[in-house]
Amino acid sequence: MTRTPLIFAAGVFYPGGEHITGWRSPAAEPTAYLDIDYYTRFAQTAEAGRFATLFLADELYVWDRFRSGIDHGVNVRLEPFTLLSALSQVTSRIGLAATVSTTYNEPYHAARKLASLDHLSAGRAAWNLVTSASDEEARNFGREAHLEHATRYRRGAEFVEVVNGLWDSWDDDAFVFDKRSGRFADRSKLHVLDHRGDHFAVRGPLNIPRPVQGHPPLFQAGASEAGRDLAGRTADAVFTLGGGDLAGGRAQYDDYKRRAVAAGRTGDDLSVLPWFSPIIGATAAEAEERFRELARLTPDRVQVDLLSHYLGHDLGDRDLDGPFDFEFDLDSFNQSKSGYAAIQSLSAQGSFTIRELAWEVLRRRFTLGTPDTLAAHLIEQYEQRAADGFILMAPTLPDTLEAFVGEIVPRLTDHGIYPAEYEGDTLRDHLGLARPRGRYAA
Amino acid sequence: MTRTPLIFAAGVFYPGGEHITGWRSPAAEPTAYLDIDYYTRFAQTAEAGRFATLFLADELYVWDRFRSGIDHGVNVRLEPFTLLSALSQVTSRIGLAATVSTTYNEPYHAARKLASLDHLSAGRAAWNLVTSASDEEARNFGREAHLEHATRYRRGAEFVEVVNGLWDSWDDDAFVFDKRSGRFADRSKLHVLDHRGDHFAVRGPLNIPRPVQGHPPLFQAGASEAGRDLAGRTADAVFTLGGGDLAGGRAQYDDYKRRAVAAGRTGDDLSVLPWFSPIIGATAAEAEERFRELARLTPDRVQVDLLSHYLGHDLGDRDLDGPFDFEFDLDSFNQSKSGYAAIQSLSAQGSFTIRELAWEVLRRRFTLGTPDTLAAHLIEQYEQRAADGFILMAPTLPDTLEAFVGEIVPRLTDHGIYPAEYEGDTLRDHLGLARPRGRYAA
Ligand SMILES: Cc1cc2nc3c(=O)[nH]c(=O)nc-3n(C[C@H](O)[C@H](O)[C@H](O)COP(=O)(O)O)c2cc1C
Ligand SMILES: Cc1cc2nc3c(=O)[nH]c(=O)nc-3n(C[C@H](O)[C@H](O)[C@H](O)COP(=O)(O)O)c2cc1C
Repeated sequence: MTRTPLIFAAGVFYPGGEHITGWRSPAAEPTAYLDIDYYTRFAQTAEAGRFATLFLADELYVWDRFRSGIDHGVNVRLEPFTLLSALSQVTSRIGLAATVSTTYNEPYHAARKLASLDHLSAGRAAWNLVTSASDEEARNFGREAHLEHATRYRRGAEFVEVVNGLWDSWDDDAFVFDKRSGRFADRSKLHVLDHRGDHFAVRGPLNIPRPVQGHPPLFQAGASEAGRDLAGRTADAVFTLGGGDLAGGRAQYDDYKRRAVAAGRTGDDLSVLPWFSPIIGATAAEAEERFRELARLTPDRVQVDLLSHYLGHDLGDRDLDGPFDFEFDLDSFNQSKSGYAAIQSLSAQGSFTIRELAWEVLRRRFTLGTPDTLAAHLIEQYEQRAADGFILMAPTLPDTLEAFVGEIVPRLTDHGIYPAEYEGDTLRDHLGLARPRGRYAA
Repeated sequence: MTRTPLIFAAGVFYPGGEHITGWRSPAAEPTAYLDIDYYTRFAQTAEAGRFATLFLADELYVWDRFRSGIDHGVNVRLEPFTLLSALSQVTSRIGLAATVSTTYNEPYHAARKLASLDHLSAGRAAWNLVTSASDEEARNFGREAHLEHATRYRRGAEFVEVVNGLWDSWDDDAFVFDKRSGRFADRSKLHVLDHRGDHFAVRGPLNIPRPVQGHPPLFQAGASEAGRDLAGRTADAVFTLGGGDLAGGRAQYDDYKRRAVAAGRTGDDLSVLPWFSPIIGATAAEAEERFRELARLTPDRVQVDLLSHYLGHDLGDRDLDGPFDFEFDLDSFNQSKSGYAAIQSLSAQGSFTIRELAWEVLRRRFTLGTPDTLAAHLIEQYEQRAADGFILMAPTLPDTLEAFVGEIVPRLTDHGIYPAEYEGDTLRDHLGLARPRGRYAA
């Protein structure tokens, strides 16, 4: 079997790009962030670049833990399912992936919306499973504090099981539509799930036919031990933060593939898509200058507050130019464990002031280069099996996506690892995945 | 103040029309029920007829209590928010109303999706609040039995309070978008709801700006005492089953208006929209023949099982041609109380066999006539204040909607009570409602 070509997902969390103050960059259009035309252009640009999918990241709260978040950040966004459904009508090939928090949703609703989006888009829906990370989200859903890390991953695993089961409620050929006999459906092809687990009791059946894709693909980004385990067992693709250098990337890649195999799947069943947030310049110096420009748009206060947020501990009253000196306690930490661990290991690599560490955390998110060096980096990662593709989280929008499609994509196609046209119709096709049969189908 | 012109909402529950076996009618297109083009034509036809809104009815289960429901009924449909969001891109004036069960949803999600749809459609979103009615729905959401009637209406009332509060999280002018100063939002214009009630604890704020309409309109159809009370206090429009004859309709209309006034609102704040399900013929005899045709498409079994469902009691093992003889007990009944009461009063009007009663229940849903008599009926209801408009639940689709727009609408426009063009832009405009200010706005 030949390897699936390089895969790209075009992600958006902040409407102005991945960087929290990307909305201030010269090309940014902050007054358009509720405007469907803005997202239509985004989707159509990604589609012109043969991206496998759009991906809408999502959180269920306003980041008001620190005042700077409201003053300077973009805390508002359209809701993923409504936005992607609208975009289904102005695109024809690109996938449409919505983030679903399994901690604060019901599997019946999620299965149904995903199936509906899949029908509306002729087989292009997908979901990104997250377990959510902060107490603020809990408080919007009747809880005082966020569900504990291990529990929320167990709930997430059960959620996937229920959703997959609900999608198989009707066999693919359950509907007869016979006006003459009056037979609409064949009852022997309808199945009652009757799930009873630790977290959910869901009888079913689902009130929508099996999705076009059978099971819309499942993305994940869990990076903790529990998160990787869940991805290995259930995800079709995983978003990672990469493993640092090539060796680290390969090790991380192998780890995910091994987990898939250990769960009785094949390595090809799980695509590994590291984070790629490029700052593109005509020369290396220009890329560096662009990064500095972007950094200048972010008040120190914001960057330190972000660090405080990742650590779950307010550093704001300390001397920002004093040494970063912090007792890590990964076990008891209940937000993103992998993000916390990454800061712990970064901080051990040198002696940083708080301000320096805050900026170093930012800098690590980006890859600086020219179209040539960035394309070479992507090719190497793919060919050396540190990546099956990438999740492009453009630091600024719409300019970075446009530059990526205009300047980097052609180099990948010329190199022969990236398609010049979409080859299949559904998102599963783009990901090189077969369509699963219904579990009860004869 | 002049009276708001006649208002129409175009409803869909079964994709093939309101009648459960409408999918068998000659013009029906059952293989298109998952096809966005089918709904696009529906929406565009209603828009050509200046309907104030589409309305997607919804339930959260498959009706498999009786075998006939699977064999002959249409138990599958697209999910309302995804479908309406897609339709927002192929329509420009018509409202887009989604059903939300307040029993099996979270207000944070509902407020967000409605706000998002409102932004995507430039002010055309609305919701239909239902409290759900059957145990099958409960079992898809972790409960063994449906929430008790009074409790679910109290939960519904609190749900509305939370949603309205969340929509006011950001003042209309909270966003600054000032690239130069780096100020995105004005923190003094962000408000934390911090709701703590019997059913919900929701901190807020909502992570999307205030909807275009401020508060997307709220529709309701509760008809029990609790349901009417909630509508009087909170709804912008209520779907009713009409009051029988003109006097009954006027009494029902007055009752809703009085409840609005008692709640400190005006009668104009609450539009009353009775059910209208026309069977249209060129002559009365032709309409009668159409009804018979439609009835012939429904097996007796289906119609009796529907009656059993409305009564929460299986009549299927009785002699269908024996007398209908049933102990009603409204107090303990936990599905739709008003539907149950309507059957009780109908059955008291004569002596029916089970089969006859089942068919009489069906027949009462429809109004038979010619374009002239049906138009005259609508005009009388409106002018005599038994209705501010109607919820058109076409018995068959797409033909009945097309006939309604082609043959009845022009008569209403000629009569001067129905607009020849849309006059406003938002759904609130179409309903004659002002845009509410944010509760905190200076
Ligand atoms: C590319 C990418 C996208 C992510 N998108 C989201 C998101 O939309 N919402 C969210 O709550 N978390 C998101 N995360 C965070 C992950 O879901 C996860 O919480 C995080 O990686 C920590 O996982 P852990 O708890 O397993 O350490 C994303 C992470 C990555 C790398
Ligand atoms: C036009 C119309 C549309 C309705 N749409 C729905 C719906 O989409 N979903 C639902 O569960 N109930 C729907 N209902 C039922 C009502 O919400 C309500 O449950 C019913 O009228 C009984 O109310 P009660 O419990 O107050 O008697 C609808 C009723 C009418 C008249």
